[in-house]
Amino acid sequence: MTAGAMPESARLRADIRAGRHSATSRGQAPGFVQCNLAILPREFAFDFMLYCQRNQRACPVLEVTDPGDPVPRRLAPGADLRTDCARYTVFIDGVAQAERTDITDLWRDDLVGFLIGSGITFDAALERAGVPTDRHRWVLRTRLPTEPAGPFRGDLIVTMRWLDPAQAIVATQVTARFPFNHGAPIHIGDAAAIGADIAAPMFGGPVPAMPPGLTALFWACGVTPQSAAQAARLPLFITHAPAHAFITDLAAERLMQP
Amino acid sequence: MTAGAMPESARLRADIRAGRHSATSRGQAPGFVQCNLAILPREFAFDFMLYCQRNQRACPVLEVTDPGDPVPRRLAPGADLRTDCARYTVFIDGVAQAERTDITDLWRDDLVGFLIGSGITFDAALERAGVPTDRHRWVLRTRLPTEPAGPFRGDLIVTMRWLDPAQAIVATQVTARFPFNHGAPIHIGDAAAIGADIAAPMFGGPVPAMPPGLTALFWACGVTPQSAAQAARLPLFITHAPAHAFITDLAAERLMQP
Repeated sequence: MTAGAMPESARLRADIRAGRHSATSRGQAPGFVQCNLAILPREFAFDFMLYCQRNQRACPVLEVTDPGDPVPRRLAPGADLRTDCARYTVFIDGVAQAERTDITDLWRDDLVGFLIGSGITFDAALERAGVPTDRHRWVLRTRLPTEPAGPFRGDLIVTMRWLDPAQAIVATQVTARFPFNHGAPIHIGDAAAIGADIAAPMFGGPVPAMPPGLTALFWACGVTPQSAAQAARLPLFITHAPAHAFITDLAAERLMQP
Repeated sequence: MTAGAMPESARLRADIRAGRHSATSRGQAPGFVQCNLAILPREFAFDFMLYCQRNQRACPVLEVTDPGDPVPRRLAPGADLRTDCARYTVFIDGVAQAERTDITDLWRDDLVGFLIGSGITFDAALERAGVPTDRHRWVLRTRLPTEPAGPFRGDLIVTMRWLDPAQAIVATQVTARFPFNHGAPIHIGDAAAIGADIAAPMFGGPVPAMPPGLTALFWACGVTPQSAAQAARLPLFITHAPAHAFITDLAAERLMQP
C-alpha cells in the first residue's frame, strides 16, 4: 500500500514474483480482471484459438501473446507470464508435473500465452449488487459437449452457484453485462439436465444437500479450455494452478457493458 | 417465396449459387447476419485470427471453418463458401484479379474461411428504432493504427453515418447492444480527429458538405481485416466483392444483448 502510483494488481504481481505472496488469487486485487492462463507451443496455437472461438462462452480470450514473448502487453504490460502466477501446473504429454512457482527455465521461443477471462472477474460486481460470492460455489464437469477444434475437445465445465430467487435474478442481470467474460448463466435449476457432476466437484469441496429456497445457476467456466488442452496431451502445456489465476491491470468495469 | 420452410437466407444463397442472383447483398434477407468473408491459407490463419482478436471491435470473428472445409457449419450448415457469395475478389500476392462468381477451382485443402460480422447486421435493428440506414453512410480509412499480428497491420477502417442528434443517441444505444458485431461507435464528431479520409471514401461515393443539424458517428468496420490481409500480400487471399457479403442463417437478434 506504500507503493505510490502502482496499482494493486501490479503490487501483488511484484509480491508474487519476489516470493512474498504464494496464496490463492481469490479475493486479491479486487476489481481487477483475473485470467486463466494457458501456455502452449505455437504449433497448437491456431487450433486452441479456434477451440476458444467456437466455445466463446467458456473461453473468452482476452489476450494472446506473440510467440516467445512472455509479456502480456495489453492487459499487464509490466508483467511476466513466467513468474507472475503464484503457482503453475505443468503438463508434459498430458501428465501433471510437480507444481512450480516459476516457469522461466521452461520458457521457449515458440510458446504462446492465452489469457482467458475468469468468473472471478465479476465477483466484485456481484457483491456490489448484493449477491454473495464466497460460498455455495463449485466447479463441475457436465455432459454438454463443446465444439471441437483440432485435438481440443471435451465436455463443458461450469461454475455452479446456489442463490435465493432475488439473488438469482440479479446475478443473471449483472453477469449478462459481461458478454466477453462468460456472460449470463447457461442453465438454471436441475443439475442433472446438463449432466453436471455434483458427486465429484472439480473445485469447491463436497456438494451438500441444497438448503430450501435456493436455486442452482450454472455459468460456462474458463477451466473448460484448460481441461481440453490437458486432455489433448500436448508435449508441453502450462497453466496456472487452481485458484492461482493471473491478475491483470484491467479494471473489471472495462469489460462491463452498459 | 415458394420454397416452403427454407429461410430467406438459404433461398437467397440457392439463387446466388444457381446464378439467379448477382446483385448486392445489401437489403437482402433482412434480419439475417451478413458477414465479411476472408479465406486464406492455414499457414497464415493463426496470425490472422490473432489480428482479429487484437482488433475485436473491427474484426468480430463469428465463425472459422476447419482447414479445407468450405461449409460454415455453425452459421449456415447448408452453405458453401466457394459458391454462395454473389461476387468474390481474389488477391494473389496482394494483387487483385478479375472478380468471379465462383471460387471452386481455387479451393485447396489448406484454406481457412473467416466469417466476420458486418455492420449491415444491425441495420434492421436501427431501422426499427427509427434510424435510417440507406443514406449518409460511407466507409473511410482513418489514421488510427490497429494492433498488428504477424504480417497483418494497417489503419482502422470505419463506417461513418450522419445522423441527427436524436438518431445519434438511439443509434449509439442500439449498436452498443451488439458487442460481438462492432458494438457502439468508436468516435463521434470531428472526422479529422481520427484522420478519417473524407476526401477519398472507400465506399459510399463522394462525401458532400454536411447538412446543418447532423453529427458524424464512426463505427469500427469489418473491412479493416480484409484491408490488412490484402496489404499483407499473401500468396492467396479471397474475399467477397464489396457489397456482396456472405449471408448466414443466423438471426441478427441472436447477436443482440438484452
